[in-house]
Amino acid sequence: MRTLAEHRAAALALGAPLPTEEVGLDDALGRVLAQDVRTADALPRWANSAMDGYAVHQADLVGASAEHPVTLWVVADLPAGTSADPRIDRGTAARIMTGAPVPSGADAIVPVEHTDGGTISVTVRVEPAPGAHVRGAGEDAAAGDLVVPAGTLLGPAHVSACASVGQARLVVHRRPRVAVVSTGDELVAPGEPLARGQLPDSNSWLLAAAVREAGADAVRIGPVGDDPADLRALLDALDAGTYPQAGPVDAIITSGGVSVGAYDVVKAALLDEPDVAFVPVAVQPGKPQGLGRLVHGTPVFALPGNPVSSFVSFELFVRPALRRLQGATEVERPTVVATVDDAWRTPPGRTQIMPVRVVAPADDLGLDTAVDPATNPRPTVRRATPGGSGSHLVARLALADGLAVVPVDVTAVERGDLLTVLRLR
Amino acid sequence: MRTLAEHRAAALALGAPLPTEEVGLDDALGRVLAQDVRTADALPRWANSAMDGYAVHQADLVGASAEHPVTLWVVADLPAGTSADPRIDRGTAARIMTGAPVPSGADAIVPVEHTDGGTISVTVRVEPAPGAHVRGAGEDAAAGDLVVPAGTLLGPAHVSACASVGQARLVVHRRPRVAVVSTGDELVAPGEPLARGQLPDSNSWLLAAAVREAGADAVRIGPVGDDPADLRALLDALDAGTYPQAGPVDAIITSGGVSVGAYDVVKAALLDEPDVAFVPVAVQPGKPQGLGRLVHGTPVFALPGNPVSSFVSFELFVRPALRRLQGATEVERPTVVATVDDAWRTPPGRTQIMPVRVVAPADDLGLDTAVDPATNPRPTVRRATPGGSGSHLVARLALADGLAVVPVDVTAVERGDLLTVLRLR
Repeated sequence: MRTLAEHRAAALALGAPLPTEEVGLDDALGRVLAQDVRTADALPRWANSAMDGYAVHQADLVGASAEHPVTLWVVADLPAGTSADPRIDRGTAARIMTGAPVPSGADAIVPVEHTDGGTISVTVRVEPAPGAHVRGAGEDAAAGDLVVPAGTLLGPAHVSACASVGQARLVVHRRPRVAVVSTGDELVAPGEPLARGQLPDSNSWLLAAAVREAGADAVRIGPVGDDPADLRALLDALDAGTYPQAGPVDAIITSGGVSVGAYDVVKAALLDEPDVAFVPVAVQPGKPQGLGRLVHGTPVFALPGNPVSSFVSFELFVRPALRRLQGATEVERPTVVATVDDAWRTPPGRTQIMPVRVVAPADDLGLDTAVDPATNPRPTVRRATPGGSGSHLVARLALADGLAVVPVDVTAVERGDLLTVLRLR
Repeated sequence: MRTLAEHRAAALALGAPLPTEEVGLDDALGRVLAQDVRTADALPRWANSAMDGYAVHQADLVGASAEHPVTLWVVADLPAGTSADPRIDRGTAARIMTGAPVPSGADAIVPVEHTDGGTISVTVRVEPAPGAHVRGAGEDAAAGDLVVPAGTLLGPAHVSACASVGQARLVVHRRPRVAVVSTGDELVAPGEPLARGQLPDSNSWLLAAAVREAGADAVRIGPVGDDPADLRALLDALDAGTYPQAGPVDAIITSGGVSVGAYDVVKAALLDEPDVAFVPVAVQPGKPQGLGRLVHGTPVFALPGNPVSSFVSFELFVRPALRRLQGATEVERPTVVATVDDAWRTPPGRTQIMPVRVVAPADDLGLDTAVDPATNPRPTVRRATPGGSGSHLVARLALADGLAVVPVDVTAVERGDLLTVLRLR
């Protein structure tokens, strides 16, 4: 039996970063940068004012106070965006707005609220420190500095940093296109009438949405029946890029048909594929797994069909590989350590992945009071599926905020234990 | 000065949920459900097998073991999806696949691995418990149960749960359409040549990406200059839904021009708007804020122009309101309590929001070892912007994993303190 870590490594190895393309900043959110973005200039480019006020010679204001104000001539008015660089002689000042370049000679900014706000002369009631309220050139970054490294999944602040260095277009990895195929003669499309023994396909929707949430495009196919020759033809066409609904795809995910049963269609369809292996993995749920490459090289992830198993398998094995296909350096979900307010037994020799919901504390911003270490400020979790990992519990899975990891050597989780939780939201 | 909580409440009050529309399951990810989804049927609908094996009368196998196996006639073969319901008399069994309905009479499932796998007769080597490996009808949900409540931001598991109850189309709130306008004579488009005092607009890209990340559509306008009459005409057209690039919008976000300077264009443009107020808020950064509704009712969020201030203001005031526009019940970012490996002073009387990065531990899944409470399994954070909150540090902002909240009554953060952190990733 493979360990969870071994199978995760094998799955991740299927995710070689896709080719790159150029996008504008408006299309960059959620893409993965393929080339380092550096700044050609120091940031800020010019020393500029952090306040609305007056640019002064600090030496003119030594000893200035409300009782002993100092008056300076106002020789210039510098709005943001001005390219003026008036000479500020001793005894003079320039009115200056936030962001405007500090004029030559001036070495401090006095905020307007410490003055009389004059436009011909200004009376100053404080002694500024040398350099006060001046944003120095290069304080944010030096010329040539790395601003956003290749491999970064671009969030708003990254897009903004690229804009601020003047980079209007970015080189990113292509979005993966992923075919999702759910299998099973018992499955019908949601909303269709159900005979005894039938149920609506939910896995293809689950996995397609999970693919999209992971930053890839999903093509949902099926549900398809339990005929291995039919399925094989479909997978071959997907691998060759000739399946009409899908075109070329970068990965295929199937659900169902990987176990030891007599009708395990995915296993049967891929039995003679030299680079696809069906292996038991020491994890619960999600023990039966298929993984490999089809003959044209398309990675295939053959997941078990129980909804919770499918979902857990996607999170453990497929999501990191899809992130790697996108070129991301960081491929894992964020985790948090949580306290368990629940107790259950877990199978020996297998890592258990338990859908959990956070029951306390409600997220709040701690706006008004400091965090009290005595109050155990960790999230508290309980099982989302009270009956156990319950791999068929598709309705209850919707309650889960995270997936708790119970290590392989643990056989019972007790109230008060700490578990690592992958955060899903 | 308004407290942070007061201004947050005022901002949130601008976010009345938008009208609803119907979408298919393929378009449901990231939308907010507007009507409860309940299950008409019990889930599972039929008692079904949790294993590939044999459906049996448990009473036939009392005392069965490897030494004393029991042989039963196999009278039926039940693949998943069958609607057959053969009668299973005492002394007989049905071969059954995972998910197939348990036939009448049978009351336990024996997994195939505890048998000889026969198809005419089967020899069983264990005594199953009554009900073993039978998934009872209604174990997941009872008929009429609430499966996904209105107000839920739909993730993969929610979409899947809706599919599993046969709901092919969902009623969701309309996506908000948000105009983003950055102001300032100093701003040019990224990539344009820069004269002294000019810099590339980054805020419109920051805020547009943040709007999209918050589940809304963004229309980026500008940068626009510091002429109040021009800006006023633009805002009026956006409010009236007549601005050609944008059409009707559900909210307007501006950045810059809200402070006490002589060129504060947003403040000047909206001076006579009866329902827009410019107020200082007890937060750092982000003290100067404008907020309200224009004459046709469009909410306007007038944020300060420094990039970090803009971003923090968006997170504190705009994002929750956009989530509320979408109809979401939960409008806040997830938070985590982190240990600080850093020290800095904070302004008295203002809540400080400090961009921080997580420096330890690296996210890992705790696959192989239990969490050791003695090792302080909390994230450790440092300032992303070592120079302070540095509201102009757009490049360094890109390093932030979260925003730490320093409560209003705290004036110095010490190494080892615990802070609540809004997780950005």
